[in-house]
Amino acid sequence: MNANIKKVEYAVRGPIVQRAVQIEKELKEGVKKPFNEVIKANIGDAHAMGQRPVTFFRQVLALCSYPELLDDDKFPEDTKYRAQRILKACGGSSIGAYTASQGIECVRQDVSRYIERRDGGVPCDPDNIYLTTGASDGIVTMLKLLTAGEGRTRTGVMIPIPQYPLYSAAIAELGAVQLNYYLDEDKCWGLDISELQRSLQAASKHCNPRVLCIINPGNPTGQVQSRERIEDVIRFAAKERLFLMADEVYQDNVYAEGCKFYSFKKVLYEMGPEYFNTVELASFHSTSKCYMGECGMRGGYMEVINMDSEVKAQLTKLVSVRLCPPVPGQALMALVTNSPQPGEPSHAQFLKERTATLGDLAQKAKLTEEILNTVPGIRCNPVQGAMYSFPQITLPERAIREAKEKGQAPDMFYCMKLLEETGICLVPGSGFGQKEGTYHFRMTILPPADKLKILLSKVKEFHQRFTKCYS
Amino acid sequence: MNANIKKVEYAVRGPIVQRAVQIEKELKEGVKKPFNEVIKANIGDAHAMGQRPVTFFRQVLALCSYPELLDDDKFPEDTKYRAQRILKACGGSSIGAYTASQGIECVRQDVSRYIERRDGGVPCDPDNIYLTTGASDGIVTMLKLLTAGEGRTRTGVMIPIPQYPLYSAAIAELGAVQLNYYLDEDKCWGLDISELQRSLQAASKHCNPRVLCIINPGNPTGQVQSRERIEDVIRFAAKERLFLMADEVYQDNVYAEGCKFYSFKKVLYEMGPEYFNTVELASFHSTSKCYMGECGMRGGYMEVINMDSEVKAQLTKLVSVRLCPPVPGQALMALVTNSPQPGEPSHAQFLKERTATLGDLAQKAKLTEEILNTVPGIRCNPVQGAMYSFPQITLPERAIREAKEKGQAPDMFYCMKLLEETGICLVPGSGFGQKEGTYHFRMTILPPADKLKILLSKVKEFHQRFTKCYS
Repeated sequence: MNANIKKVEYAVRGPIVQRAVQIEKELKEGVKKPFNEVIKANIGDAHAMGQRPVTFFRQVLALCSYPELLDDDKFPEDTKYRAQRILKACGGSSIGAYTASQGIECVRQDVSRYIERRDGGVPCDPDNIYLTTGASDGIVTMLKLLTAGEGRTRTGVMIPIPQYPLYSAAIAELGAVQLNYYLDEDKCWGLDISELQRSLQAASKHCNPRVLCIINPGNPTGQVQSRERIEDVIRFAAKERLFLMADEVYQDNVYAEGCKFYSFKKVLYEMGPEYFNTVELASFHSTSKCYMGECGMRGGYMEVINMDSEVKAQLTKLVSVRLCPPVPGQALMALVTNSPQPGEPSHAQFLKERTATLGDLAQKAKLTEEILNTVPGIRCNPVQGAMYSFPQITLPERAIREAKEKGQAPDMFYCMKLLEETGICLVPGSGFGQKEGTYHFRMTILPPADKLKILLSKVKEFHQRFTKCYS
Repeated sequence: MNANIKKVEYAVRGPIVQRAVQIEKELKEGVKKPFNEVIKANIGDAHAMGQRPVTFFRQVLALCSYPELLDDDKFPEDTKYRAQRILKACGGSSIGAYTASQGIECVRQDVSRYIERRDGGVPCDPDNIYLTTGASDGIVTMLKLLTAGEGRTRTGVMIPIPQYPLYSAAIAELGAVQLNYYLDEDKCWGLDISELQRSLQAASKHCNPRVLCIINPGNPTGQVQSRERIEDVIRFAAKERLFLMADEVYQDNVYAEGCKFYSFKKVLYEMGPEYFNTVELASFHSTSKCYMGECGMRGGYMEVINMDSEVKAQLTKLVSVRLCPPVPGQALMALVTNSPQPGEPSHAQFLKERTATLGDLAQKAKLTEEILNTVPGIRCNPVQGAMYSFPQITLPERAIREAKEKGQAPDMFYCMKLLEETGICLVPGSGFGQKEGTYHFRMTILPPADKLKILLSKVKEFHQRFTKCYS
């Protein structure tokens, strides 16, 4: 078998999650546990945590699935209009037909108008938009296109540490070289250009660094990059001729006061033509996060700018081999980027639902940070954005020794004990990467507020018990 | 960029299709052509060719998308029951939640019961089922898992010629070695074991042959393998210790009298435990073909048997990196494999729709073969199954020379001229592979019968004109 696949690791669905699924089965079978349910705070899966789908989206999807409903008075006119527009763009007016491999043209137009609005008028060409099967698919496709070589000429891909493990998994699978740059936990997981420089210099002897990945807002670290920092990154990428991959799937998930989402595209544009016409950039978005939380639909897009036209032709060919992204996900992306406008019948309810979800998340971000910081031995940066807290935990020496004797990462040992004793499923920091000698876990802020409070107080109790037990 | 990607070719969406899209735009813009519309007979896209979706499927998908409809009297009880069962298996009862990476458990159960019924009771373990994003995704994932090595140790993958170009594209992308075995056009695209033997022997000097791919019913060649031939292939795979990949996405598309679909799994079982407990097999299915034609939903599954348990664990990890297949496609796979039963309210209509579609396809398969065989210089094998005819065309020497001067494959030259003159979009045989010095095209049998007749008579006229012009 393929040796690269053996090297792939994916903590978000790793051994701890497998054990959680097993425990759920045991509970169902009546096995006695010190808890009644498993709470999965390991993955950003909003609907599974009780968030309701946006009514407008689901009405249009129902209409697209079963167009006989277009005669039904229950559906507002704007849902019918959207459904008819999508159906008209599908072969045989069916979402069961293949679409263009790059995605339905009118959906790519919706996406490009959305990007233009988001970025205050920066132009966006629908030909630069590729619809994808979730953001993961886009990221893997782009890495596949950009990585090459053997031995010392292998492509180096710079990724943040801590990182979302899709990156390390894809790099391992492709046989490329993972180049770590560390985010500064003491500066709220800030990005420091001198650290990028260090990482690049250390790498250039043994590989060919060509790609720089940024996750903003940060996953698992929840920080939101400032405009100045994004400018620094762009200057760095321009100077070092790196292809920028901007993972911007949490672009609506910004909670902290004073923080704002700036897209790499917008900043690039505003830095002037010497940057906007030269720096190669791919930006990724998804229907899975923000206020939508539609993970199961596997919708997403990427915008690709300044890519060499021959390479772009290769990208277009590459995506054609998979025929097309799932059409329900494409349709959903059309709705996200062309949502109800003032004056349309669905507007009020849409706005209410979106505002409630984002407001709720902002509150839970604050709550999580506050409660975790009351625990001696847990230190949590502000959750400025995205959907996760990534606190540092202090582990007693004896626990670290015992974990190592078991061949486990100390924070895996901790999270496994937490799961067995409380039913709470978190992901150990070692699955994302962290500075040697530090320990963390990633926890989503998605459970409903009352459940989140219980979860946090259970984590608190557990941490105190664990610390006492191993001190 | 990745040099392997440059080698990828995918004729089904290649230059001829790009030109067809361009011509469609020109027609819209009012450019005068000798035809009014482009007929795309290049790809098995049933809904785009006017086939109507199965009502039952779409009703359940609408209910899953917008569960408020569960109160609606318009929907039969069995559609509601199916929708509720799927929703209950989803996190937060939403198809917007991630599922297990291998697919929703109750869907995998439906699939395994379907396989057991199909194969007359041969046992099927739901743990061996992996839901996929269409069959393409499953095939590429499996090839990725199984191919490895450098230079002379690279994995060799045996594929039929003519083949569906997903195989050659994936093999090129992965840097594996494509090993051709030729189907026998004179024996209705039959599979000959001595040819498998020849192909394997020729290969074993320069690579490590490990995988044998079979497409049955055949794409693009439309043949249906006999039970005896499948037994031969299994014996060959067992003797040579090859991993069998059986592409069985056209399993319901069998039209010719005396032909029957036998799954590799069933034949393997009936050959006794020395085969059933040892031969490694992955079989692929999809929601895109058969009577469903739901290509845009990207639903599919693979069944994997006798895979080494450690390799299987790696497969499970590998699919987890993409989180999960699209949930609407999973739901659809549940409906295909757990369709309405006698006594259920949707049964009569479901049966009527399925029977009509398959009956219609059988007629069109016959019609296509008959009309093409009336044309001097076109020779078409019976379309026993699948959705395509793959006739051999005789091209005048002068046309072959002119094509070669242009750097085009002669059948590409032919198909391009056909497209420009008639608006009919076919795929040249060179995109699938063919014996040196022979020329073919692939044409789907999917257009509605009246349109298909026009299409065939236009092909006939064109072929006569072309032959005359270049003779």
